[in-house]
Amino acid sequence: MYNEKMIGLGSKRSVIRELFEYGKKRAAEVGADKVYDYSLGNPSVPAPACVNKTIKQILDSRPSVAVHGYTSAQGDLSTRKAIAEYTNERFGCRVTADDFYMTCGAAASLTITLNALHEEGDEIVAIAPFFPEYRVFSEAAGYKLVVSRPIDGTLQPDPKDLSRIITPHTKAVILNSPNNPSGVVYTEESVKAVCALLQKKSAEFGRPIFIICDEPYREIVYDGVSVPYLPNYYDDVVVCYSFSKSLSLPGERIGYVMVNPKCKDARLLYAAVCGAGRALGYVCAPSLMQAVIEKVVRAETDVAAYKKNRDLLQGGLEEIGYTCVKPDGAFYLFVKSLEPDAGAFSDRAKEYGLLLVPGDDFCAPGYVRLAYCVSHEMIERSMPAFRALFESYRAR
Amino acid sequence: MYNEKMIGLGSKRSVIRELFEYGKKRAAEVGADKVYDYSLGNPSVPAPACVNKTIKQILDSRPSVAVHGYTSAQGDLSTRKAIAEYTNERFGCRVTADDFYMTCGAAASLTITLNALHEEGDEIVAIAPFFPEYRVFSEAAGYKLVVSRPIDGTLQPDPKDLSRIITPHTKAVILNSPNNPSGVVYTEESVKAVCALLQKKSAEFGRPIFIICDEPYREIVYDGVSVPYLPNYYDDVVVCYSFSKSLSLPGERIGYVMVNPKCKDARLLYAAVCGAGRALGYVCAPSLMQAVIEKVVRAETDVAAYKKNRDLLQGGLEEIGYTCVKPDGAFYLFVKSLEPDAGAFSDRAKEYGLLLVPGDDFCAPGYVRLAYCVSHEMIERSMPAFRALFESYRAR
Repeated sequence: MYNEKMIGLGSKRSVIRELFEYGKKRAAEVGADKVYDYSLGNPSVPAPACVNKTIKQILDSRPSVAVHGYTSAQGDLSTRKAIAEYTNERFGCRVTADDFYMTCGAAASLTITLNALHEEGDEIVAIAPFFPEYRVFSEAAGYKLVVSRPIDGTLQPDPKDLSRIITPHTKAVILNSPNNPSGVVYTEESVKAVCALLQKKSAEFGRPIFIICDEPYREIVYDGVSVPYLPNYYDDVVVCYSFSKSLSLPGERIGYVMVNPKCKDARLLYAAVCGAGRALGYVCAPSLMQAVIEKVVRAETDVAAYKKNRDLLQGGLEEIGYTCVKPDGAFYLFVKSLEPDAGAFSDRAKEYGLLLVPGDDFCAPGYVRLAYCVSHEMIERSMPAFRALFESYRAR
Repeated sequence: MYNEKMIGLGSKRSVIRELFEYGKKRAAEVGADKVYDYSLGNPSVPAPACVNKTIKQILDSRPSVAVHGYTSAQGDLSTRKAIAEYTNERFGCRVTADDFYMTCGAAASLTITLNALHEEGDEIVAIAPFFPEYRVFSEAAGYKLVVSRPIDGTLQPDPKDLSRIITPHTKAVILNSPNNPSGVVYTEESVKAVCALLQKKSAEFGRPIFIICDEPYREIVYDGVSVPYLPNYYDDVVVCYSFSKSLSLPGERIGYVMVNPKCKDARLLYAAVCGAGRALGYVCAPSLMQAVIEKVVRAETDVAAYKKNRDLLQGGLEEIGYTCVKPDGAFYLFVKSLEPDAGAFSDRAKEYGLLLVPGDDFCAPGYVRLAYCVSHEMIERSMPAFRALFESYRAR
């Protein structure tokens, strides 16, 4: 009587949510100080002070109907102009307000882009490990999702594996760097190799293969690592951005789609993006937040707090004997499971109060994800539990 | 290379938007005081003062990560509780927080509901005149949209016509009262007749036919007219609500889906709603606005300003000789075109600076829609133009 697929999606809680709910229950039983919750990717750093200050300034200086009224479907022109200017300054490219379409966050950017690009029979390629919703979004838009394995150890994209997987049906490859769940930043070398391969394959098949850049973690990188800006390396790129992580505004649902003006028939693709936004029920991105973004687009993310957490967590775990994937960005640490079944490892970790997400849902069996957007003090307190967990395996 | 349907939806501006853009251009040419723009349904009344006050209070009293962080996918529990309590008080029903799913406005509520209900071969019935996006949303979700003609003159639903149109494929009928574009409020008699018919047909076909109540204009009614609350008349109802019009917050994208707990297998349908929200990329409704709604759910709409506009406009037009459909709610007046082709009538009206939307896009040829959410003073100034337009037809 109802849509079976939607019932399935709505009934099955994600493993991450399951762990999070378990943690809340467990904290009530044994005390919050004995539960170390590394499950959720909810920013722990407050939004920069300029955000709330700007909200108040806007409320005080503009008429209500202008602040809270509809913007045009593609977003307020001044907001799009401000983002375009900033993008050009920062990445040395030449984009305009007309290349941007404001959205209700990265998930909306992705579903809109996928619907805009979709033709019968198309496939989407995701590179493991990847955010589980890629499968949900791709399948809902009518695609088959195909998974490419990364290079073992570094988790960089593997052009050889990609080459095997890309077919004349491949509409796009999703690149997510800094990566959720691994914290890996794709190197310029990796990016160039992927672009070269896609260029070759596009020519071979006589139709462009797109890159969809999902980059909500772009600003969260450490030790001066730089994140290559894909539109500077490849023409057929759509950037899906969100201010959720960079400005710690995940609940406000504000982001954008940027259709690279160098895309083949870019204006047609932009029109399809507008059409997809319309068909999915996205009338406009939240208006007050659009006005805020116009003013704070240059605000800096407080990366220092996350870096301090990363250093403590990675340093502590490696000292105990754990193996971590090099975490250059985002706020995730990907750690090798101490037994082949990461689910069983996660279950045993729970006995020590440690909530670690098994990598299987990210198409990365054998790993667990630790979201370190938590208090520094919780990381400190959790170290003896990590040690006890490690030793339980040696005692086996 | 791109999705043809999405390109079509994104390239073709709606007639309403075309008129609006024309108006801005024309105002620059001949002066804003000579253009009388009745095209857009953007509230002209400011949001109640408590909205901005509450925003500031929340920013000042809660930590940033709580205000701007993710809520659960179905929405913050306190917000849903507040809405459920208010709904029970007001309509004497017995709903709980668990029946509500917060959304990014009525359009999102509709696309989510349509996707949740959809099964292969299903049809949706809309009653003319109706909001053109019903067709877009229904077709994007995989339905065929079927149109039922209303009763001539009153534009109430016609049970005879509905009876002719409903088949074993009918999944749901969308009811929109107070109605956009006509301003008509469906009477209790109409509602009862529709419900009785749907009950009979549901029994006949052995599967429920749902009512989707699209009611963003619920609070905007005049002269003590009451809007029957559908869940009190029929079990298989999903309410799609938005605070866009009631609180003048159309840009903020905040509303909800309420799955009537009396629906057949209501928890399954609620799960499907959650799944559809997820598949379409709606992670959660904007968090700050959810917190605001919790506090202002009892705020009253300033209907007086709209009523003053309606009285002036309807009175003035009828005095001149125009025929209006009785406008009991929303902020639209539906007026009979002075020639059979409402498009031609709208074109001639433009020569007098009057921007009136032809009814054809609403499946109501022979009418024009006037959105009177404008300044009272503009209505006053426009009266001589309406008179001149009327006389141009007599002089023919």
